[in-house]
Amino acid sequence: MNISVPRGTEDLLPENTKQWQVVEEALKGLAHTYHYDEIRTPMFERTELFQRGVGDTTDIVQKEMYTFEDRGGRSLTLRPEGTASVARSYVQHKMHGNADQPTKLYYLGPMFRYERPQQGRTRQFTQFGIEAIGSADPAIDAEVIAFAMDCYQVLGLKSLKLVLNSLGDKESREAHRQALVEHFKPYQEELCSDCQMRLEQNPLRLLDCKVDRDHPTMSSAPSILEYLNDYSSQYFEEVKKHLDAMGISYVVDETLVRGLDYYTHTAFEIMSEAEGFGSITTLSGGGRYNGLIQDLGGPENSGIGFALSIERLLMALKAEGIDLETGQTLDCFVITMGDEAKYTASSLVYKLRKAGFRTDQDYLDKKMKAQFKAADRYKAKYAIIIGEDEVNNGVANVKNLVEGEQKTIELDKIIEQLETSV
Amino acid sequence: MNISVPRGTEDLLPENTKQWQVVEEALKGLAHTYHYDEIRTPMFERTELFQRGVGDTTDIVQKEMYTFEDRGGRSLTLRPEGTASVARSYVQHKMHGNADQPTKLYYLGPMFRYERPQQGRTRQFTQFGIEAIGSADPAIDAEVIAFAMDCYQVLGLKSLKLVLNSLGDKESREAHRQALVEHFKPYQEELCSDCQMRLEQNPLRLLDCKVDRDHPTMSSAPSILEYLNDYSSQYFEEVKKHLDAMGISYVVDETLVRGLDYYTHTAFEIMSEAEGFGSITTLSGGGRYNGLIQDLGGPENSGIGFALSIERLLMALKAEGIDLETGQTLDCFVITMGDEAKYTASSLVYKLRKAGFRTDQDYLDKKMKAQFKAADRYKAKYAIIIGEDEVNNGVANVKNLVEGEQKTIELDKIIEQLETSV
Repeated sequence: MNISVPRGTEDLLPENTKQWQVVEEALKGLAHTYHYDEIRTPMFERTELFQRGVGDTTDIVQKEMYTFEDRGGRSLTLRPEGTASVARSYVQHKMHGNADQPTKLYYLGPMFRYERPQQGRTRQFTQFGIEAIGSADPAIDAEVIAFAMDCYQVLGLKSLKLVLNSLGDKESREAHRQALVEHFKPYQEELCSDCQMRLEQNPLRLLDCKVDRDHPTMSSAPSILEYLNDYSSQYFEEVKKHLDAMGISYVVDETLVRGLDYYTHTAFEIMSEAEGFGSITTLSGGGRYNGLIQDLGGPENSGIGFALSIERLLMALKAEGIDLETGQTLDCFVITMGDEAKYTASSLVYKLRKAGFRTDQDYLDKKMKAQFKAADRYKAKYAIIIGEDEVNNGVANVKNLVEGEQKTIELDKIIEQLETSV
Repeated sequence: MNISVPRGTEDLLPENTKQWQVVEEALKGLAHTYHYDEIRTPMFERTELFQRGVGDTTDIVQKEMYTFEDRGGRSLTLRPEGTASVARSYVQHKMHGNADQPTKLYYLGPMFRYERPQQGRTRQFTQFGIEAIGSADPAIDAEVIAFAMDCYQVLGLKSLKLVLNSLGDKESREAHRQALVEHFKPYQEELCSDCQMRLEQNPLRLLDCKVDRDHPTMSSAPSILEYLNDYSSQYFEEVKKHLDAMGISYVVDETLVRGLDYYTHTAFEIMSEAEGFGSITTLSGGGRYNGLIQDLGGPENSGIGFALSIERLLMALKAEGIDLETGQTLDCFVITMGDEAKYTASSLVYKLRKAGFRTDQDYLDKKMKAQFKAADRYKAKYAIIIGEDEVNNGVANVKNLVEGEQKTIELDKIIEQLETSV
């Protein structure tokens, strides 16, 4: 029986990876322009990190983690998201002591969540994200939001919607929490079992429930914005003022709640408004986390970040009909006749590659006509033909496949000639 | 208590990732030149794949795999190497039916082995590898070996040694196997317990034992080269002839045995000969696997590939004193005085980035002098200074930090001016 890829995962084959490379280069280019440096954390962490850093009551920690014991009996978990790992690394390596502050980092790589596989949702997926740690300036919230939007705009996407909210600081959140409990408590028994638990553990999460979405108490639930204290309220105003100055449009949505426990103040999501994009329209999201670094044993430094899924970005490109340019051509394809020519060909191919020419040859003992066909299929600019006579005379026939002309050139002059004519 | 990275893994921080990026770009550039396309397979596979595709009797499968059950009760294993996954993908997606043959693929990413951590050996490490599947032409063996050597040469490494052997085809291997059993059988009880088991299961692996390395029977063990049949022997000669034509030097070492079960014919390793490189001198290895595709349910197609560890490549660079150029500078650093200037700065920084200038600003309410210091530390080419007067007049002072001159420029002319002067 053949073995297939594990359920909920997929292979990316060359026809896909070429697109991925274009997208990833664009994102890394933006990180460079925005002055964020790359960090790479391991694929797995101690399970405790996510329990503390993502939150014990979240769906991710309760239902979706790949947790296992290693051969030494340690409980490890494949990382379900990037922020907790980056924050752990920030604390472990005492990055708050570095000269360059705030610490601006980006990451790119696989994340793992055991969810029901569906379109645009795989159990291994790829996130690109950034974190700016060590500044509580509303201007950097605006920077992170601008960066997030740019990730889509730089690839040509237009049907985007930026949704903004503030979750306030600890004091504001606590006041709102109490209001939520008072609001929902009388209807507790009408809510789904998850929401009944949420009411005890984390009532904010109620607003995010897919089951109780249409329950009449939802639309009348108290808004966090009414419970923001002066500091939180002013902070939110300043973030908006920076976005206005930058000319970035947004919609404030007081029901926007991010799925993770550590968010405070600014929370945002970017949606695709493209027709036919599918039912889950959120492309990415992020926000400020002003307690996380301290929760993990670091100083009282606040951070803000966002993460996007590359898979969903590619879906958005498709929905907007954007084809990324992935044109691939060869510089040279070397064609041989006869056994002796093969060694000469290996040597020439090797030299051409050393000189930087993208080159290939036939490895299937094809007839000459089929070798020419391969050269065409690979969109080679030059076919270089070597037969017995050519080997004996130390030459090759170089045919320009675009213009059709052919020249006989000494083997050790070919690179020089191609360099002047390419 | 603070949470640290799991034992045997490590974070790559910006001072490291900049080096990694240079190395990875060089390797991907070579793959482009050699006409190999990228494939990405999941971080984990069904455990059965590695049992079948790497070999039940190997150390990897017996001792080193991260195996766990997912929430659906499936046995999954973090990939310990890349070839089995690529071969699985080749079979699953019926790549033998593609127009372009042989199928030439490369991969780059983390692998996982539960080994005792030591210098240059981590439990998560990063491999770059290639596979060429669907050709049994000795010329492609030479191509793969040349590619492997080029991975080091393109980065400037010189102290390299290429070691070559042939493990022959099935018939040759079987004849050699019997000779090995006859040779070692009388001394079975003097050998280590692992070797006693190897004698039954896979006697070739005896030659690779680190415990019995100095046992007198080792140096007198029968050589595979004496047992090659005509086809295997001629194949090996032709591989060497191609390497000779390409001017690639090598040493034949009849004791070279690769750790995985699926190798046939060509096997090779690249060692560092740099002083102070450390005790494990092997940088990378590869070889031909003529049964693997069929073992996994595919057609009788043969393949050849190699894989290198990026971690060890970086160690070799260090041993040879090669510093990769990772110079990082900023184009612009925007300096503000006063609250109103901050919104103008956000807007200007945003526009500069949109125009492709690598730009940053202060997010810590620093005094002007400290902001200038930051601009210097980031090696910014331009400091752009905005105070209250500048905001009111719609201008900024642009100071060239290299040449020292300063100009007052209208805000909406800055990009244009920088574009003509950079």
